[in-house]
Amino acid sequence: MSKPVIAIDMGGTRIKIGIVQDGILLDSTSIDAYSTNGLRSRLPYIREAVENLLKPQQLSLSDLGGLGIASPGIVDSHRKKVLSIDKKFGDAPEIDLEEWSQKMFNLPFFIENDARSALVGEWIYGNAQNHDNAVLMTLGTGIGSAAIIEGKLLKGKHFTAGILGGHSVINYKGNVCNCGNKGCVETEASTWNLANMRKSEDLPASSVVDYEMIFTLAEEGNTKALEIRNQSLQAWSACAVNLIHAYDPEILVLTGGIMASSSSIIPYLRNYIETYSWTPWGKVHLTEGKFSGTAALLGIAHLINNQ
Amino acid sequence: MSKPVIAIDMGGTRIKIGIVQDGILLDSTSIDAYSTNGLRSRLPYIREAVENLLKPQQLSLSDLGGLGIASPGIVDSHRKKVLSIDKKFGDAPEIDLEEWSQKMFNLPFFIENDARSALVGEWIYGNAQNHDNAVLMTLGTGIGSAAIIEGKLLKGKHFTAGILGGHSVINYKGNVCNCGNKGCVETEASTWNLANMRKSEDLPASSVVDYEMIFTLAEEGNTKALEIRNQSLQAWSACAVNLIHAYDPEILVLTGGIMASSSSIIPYLRNYIETYSWTPWGKVHLTEGKFSGTAALLGIAHLINNQ
Repeated sequence: MSKPVIAIDMGGTRIKIGIVQDGILLDSTSIDAYSTNGLRSRLPYIREAVENLLKPQQLSLSDLGGLGIASPGIVDSHRKKVLSIDKKFGDAPEIDLEEWSQKMFNLPFFIENDARSALVGEWIYGNAQNHDNAVLMTLGTGIGSAAIIEGKLLKGKHFTAGILGGHSVINYKGNVCNCGNKGCVETEASTWNLANMRKSEDLPASSVVDYEMIFTLAEEGNTKALEIRNQSLQAWSACAVNLIHAYDPEILVLTGGIMASSSSIIPYLRNYIETYSWTPWGKVHLTEGKFSGTAALLGIAHLINNQ
Repeated sequence: MSKPVIAIDMGGTRIKIGIVQDGILLDSTSIDAYSTNGLRSRLPYIREAVENLLKPQQLSLSDLGGLGIASPGIVDSHRKKVLSIDKKFGDAPEIDLEEWSQKMFNLPFFIENDARSALVGEWIYGNAQNHDNAVLMTLGTGIGSAAIIEGKLLKGKHFTAGILGGHSVINYKGNVCNCGNKGCVETEASTWNLANMRKSEDLPASSVVDYEMIFTLAEEGNTKALEIRNQSLQAWSACAVNLIHAYDPEILVLTGGIMASSSSIIPYLRNYIETYSWTPWGKVHLTEGKFSGTAALLGIAHLINNQ
């Protein structure tokens, strides 16, 4: 049995913190991310949340095996640094997180990209188990991805291989993305861009514009919602085809907040990739992730113990 | 010193045949491909061409170390079979090429995808030397690609990883490709689709419609040629960004017949990828291949000796 570890998933809306032991999430909590304000100001709250998690488990820091962070952006998992990040947590590259972890908890530290962490979670404990060629696609605030090829987590020379699926160009005459590129999947269909895609007068006034609302309104026949839903399903499908063509997986695992509407998404994408992707050997198995929102915690915990 | 080997590159227009020893092309020839008529009827001519090459070199079959084929399409390099192929050489999957090679030449046999072979040629002997993270993109009748990541030629579980860059979706609302997918790079800009892209009345009457003509006419200010040139440069650039985002290379090597117009292509693509790809570590080195049209021969020859 391994020692329990602290696992932190830096989501753009909520930061999740969990205690994980051998693939089991013993307990977890989350705090507001306020990610546009940066990460540094959240560190004291993360520390507090960790302490609050340990007490009821009757655990002290000396009982733990490490602390791991699943972060958005490009992460150097050898030097344990965030190298580059989209708008969320923009100050992360300037923070020495290993030093912070050392000072606050005195524990072995590990950091990896969040989609890679989630794929490892699904690979070791979830729906990608026993598949040594697997791709994960996360649909949420942004679109993330990760790939395992022939049993190896794909990283590449500069740690960007596999994780930039959301910045796959699917509309080369399209709009500029957050990342500076043109026509990325994210600019065509992700939560951060929903506000631009909708025209407020066409949809009911609401402080929340999310895909759950879009899918519900589309079911009810709202024209604008139908248009957004259909374009989004096409964009995610094209992204899925690009990931399949790039990495040759047996299985494609879908996760992320937008998968709350999975019953509308899975059948569409499955039909699309079976029709349009070039896989003469057979069909890529398309499935939802096993762990709704906690795969990255389980994955980063596994990586701490196996770095 | 290795024994010389026979290297065959099944191009869609010409089949090239060479004798290669230690990265040197001792001699080569080519025959018409008539690739839409299939491969089987060309095999006797390939045999004849091999014999004609050996004589002046004073080589007999017993002096040779093997025979290798660089083929378009999806190639199983373990079982040494073409698995699936676009319109060119459509009968190749039904031919036991290893048996043919055995019967005709009694030599060790190897087969690999043509873009992968060309990348190996550039990696071992050409412009990608000393780069263990390299991507090749071929611009020609179709668009091909291949990738080496951390010193390993990327193949994937079903031998499709790396080679389907031409079937990366860059226009998800676009037209249907030869491969059955929608909005592939190839459908937006490759030689096979030029006849569809032009409107004959807008360009001078000519039996040949190729990119060299398009680039020349564009220089002269022909409106339709300019439109095709500009769309094609954008499409290839988006493909290059997708390959960079997928595989994280240090270097991107461009080859293929369209590179006859490299002086118009390289500066555009270089500027585009430096502007739009997400490479916080620096700039991907974009370069033309060293071997105009013979990289696949050198690469497959290397692979025969190192299978």
